Amino acid sequence: MILEGQHRRSIARTADGKGVRILDQRLLPWEVRWVELRSAEAAAVAIHEMWTRGAPMIGATAAYGLAMALADDPGDASLSRTYQALLATRPTAVNLRWALDEVRTAVAALPEPQRADAAFARAGAICEEDAALCRAIGEHGLALLRTLHAANPDRPLNILTHCNAGWLATVDYGTATAPIYLAHDAGIPVHVWVDETRPRNQGALLTAFELANHGVAHTVIADNAGGLLMMQGKVDAVIVGTDRVTANGDVCNKIGTYLKALAAADNNVPFYVALPYTTFDPATPTGADVPIEERAPEELTRLTGPAAGGMATVKITDSPAANPAFDVTPARLVTGYITERGVLVSVS
Amino acid sequence: MILEGQHRRSIARTADGKGVRILDQRLLPWEVRWVELRSAEAAAVAIHEMWTRGAPMIGATAAYGLAMALADDPGDASLSRTYQALLATRPTAVNLRWALDEVRTAVAALPEPQRADAAFARAGAICEEDAALCRAIGEHGLALLRTLHAANPDRPLNILTHCNAGWLATVDYGTATAPIYLAHDAGIPVHVWVDETRPRNQGALLTAFELANHGVAHTVIADNAGGLLMMQGKVDAVIVGTDRVTANGDVCNKIGTYLKALAAADNNVPFYVALPYTTFDPATPTGADVPIEERAPEELTRLTGPAAGGMATVKITDSPAANPAFDVTPARLVTGYITERGVLVSVS
Repeated sequence: MILEGQHRRSIARTADGKGVRILDQRLLPWEVRWVELRSAEAAAVAIHEMWTRGAPMIGATAAYGLAMALADDPGDASLSRTYQALLATRPTAVNLRWALDEVRTAVAALPEPQRADAAFARAGAICEEDAALCRAIGEHGLALLRTLHAANPDRPLNILTHCNAGWLATVDYGTATAPIYLAHDAGIPVHVWVDETRPRNQGALLTAFELANHGVAHTVIADNAGGLLMMQGKVDAVIVGTDRVTANGDVCNKIGTYLKALAAADNNVPFYVALPYTTFDPATPTGADVPIEERAPEELTRLTGPAAGGMATVKITDSPAANPAFDVTPARLVTGYITERGVLVSVS
Repeated sequence: MILEGQHRRSIARTADGKGVRILDQRLLPWEVRWVELRSAEAAAVAIHEMWTRGAPMIGATAAYGLAMALADDPGDASLSRTYQALLATRPTAVNLRWALDEVRTAVAALPEPQRADAAFARAGAICEEDAALCRAIGEHGLALLRTLHAANPDRPLNILTHCNAGWLATVDYGTATAPIYLAHDAGIPVHVWVDETRPRNQGALLTAFELANHGVAHTVIADNAGGLLMMQGKVDAVIVGTDRVTANGDVCNKIGTYLKALAAADNNVPFYVALPYTTFDPATPTGADVPIEERAPEELTRLTGPAAGGMATVKITDSPAANPAFDVTPARLVTGYITERGVLVSVS
């Protein structure tokens, strides 16, 4: 990722090696503030209070948190207590448990004096693996984008994306954004339609911020606009991330994804889902079996941003509001799944 | 319409008969302020600056404005000058020209002393006609809703609507909302899913305000949520208004309507368009022939509402933004057109 003109990762060890630095995403895009986490407690707060978010980033932050605890106290009690405390920060994040398990497994059989170094090493490897994996997703997606661009070489390639499946949610590259960044770096003229992504506005706040920093042309649109743009021939492909793909290929992702998939199918626009292979969930038969998280209505009825006198929160409505956070895109609407192992096509 | 517990119309003559009172819709729902318009100039400002909006309301306000000018000066020069000035307030609104033509035709052959009374009479008749027409739309729609409710009599009837095609846009009842109000008044338990309707939020600000005042159960949702709700069986019908229906039945309406029509078709939810017969435009062959208004990006990138210290405007993004105001729903996605003459079904 390019941020403020430099290549950086979303998470990295501090210069003294004792902690990690992350971005406080609650302030983006209005303020770019790196914060240093120097204890497991600090890592837990950062995850729980959503300074950082996105399954890979949560896992990486927690893995380093466990390493920091072992640097202070490498005993079994410390290991167990910290593992549980970090796991409780976001109890539904599958990747969090996986990362913590990886670190615990790496150190459990070691003598105490060796544990901290081994834990830091495994946490670092988790980050390397995630970056490599996202890069591989990007390379497979790039091949698709090259083909699409070759069909209309005289104009920019228009990609529409929803929410933020970008480098802020991973260690580097992102998932849905990885093909976009690699295409841009390869000299393909890419332009991204960024869905605002109500109610939390991750598109307008985070994805637009990423693309601006990387220098990728983009335009923020209301979530309502994508169908018209596809009908007008202004979208060459849709690429989104996903929280879970069920055994039959149904895609659970940020609310509103399904509507874009319908519009893509109606206008013969390819609709791609970018994901690490671990996001496939063969234990869940179909999207209908995935519980849909209902979040606080205030995410919809209040909006916070910079105003004349500093940050302000304005009211949008006093009426009752509902806020389902995810929807399900049926497998039949998905053109392909871009993974680190290649592009899969649903046959259901 | 019921407002603050009383039945009122969106526009009515003042007690002394010399002007009209309307709501300043720019302040809704946060402040209910009736304003009196007592000159053609005041009417022109109210239309141009969108104190009032919606094709029927614009026409009614302009008709009264012309009558007020004739009360001051009934001469031909006054008539011609005021007609042009009012017409220029919203040059693309077909209904505005129609209403002004109606008043001009009613007075042109009369001696000057009789013109003002005749103009007020015609403006009043336009309002009566609009209210009767919306009521007739409501009655035809009510028959549809009765049938839908009879299929599931043990639970509330769930209607989803987009934007504001309500009584604020008409003299009374609204178009898309007319069947809802009549169903509610008839004792059918109706619940309305109100699309927020980004970027101008007419759903969250205006439709929710109307429904709350009339006592109709409703829930505001992000525009992204409707597809999931339909998939979950929580929507029995979609009813929207329209700005224009082309010769082949394509529906031009607020941006985002198309996405809801796609989801309705995908889930076998009936998708109705409510409109006065005059909104059919046989001179335009298809939706592809309708120019799409592109509005200011600030409607998307800034949001104004009540904050702790009074009204405030917060920034959503500094990125470039696009703001197309309408989209086109193909006729094949429309279950029926609810008009004052009955429910039409597209055969294209």
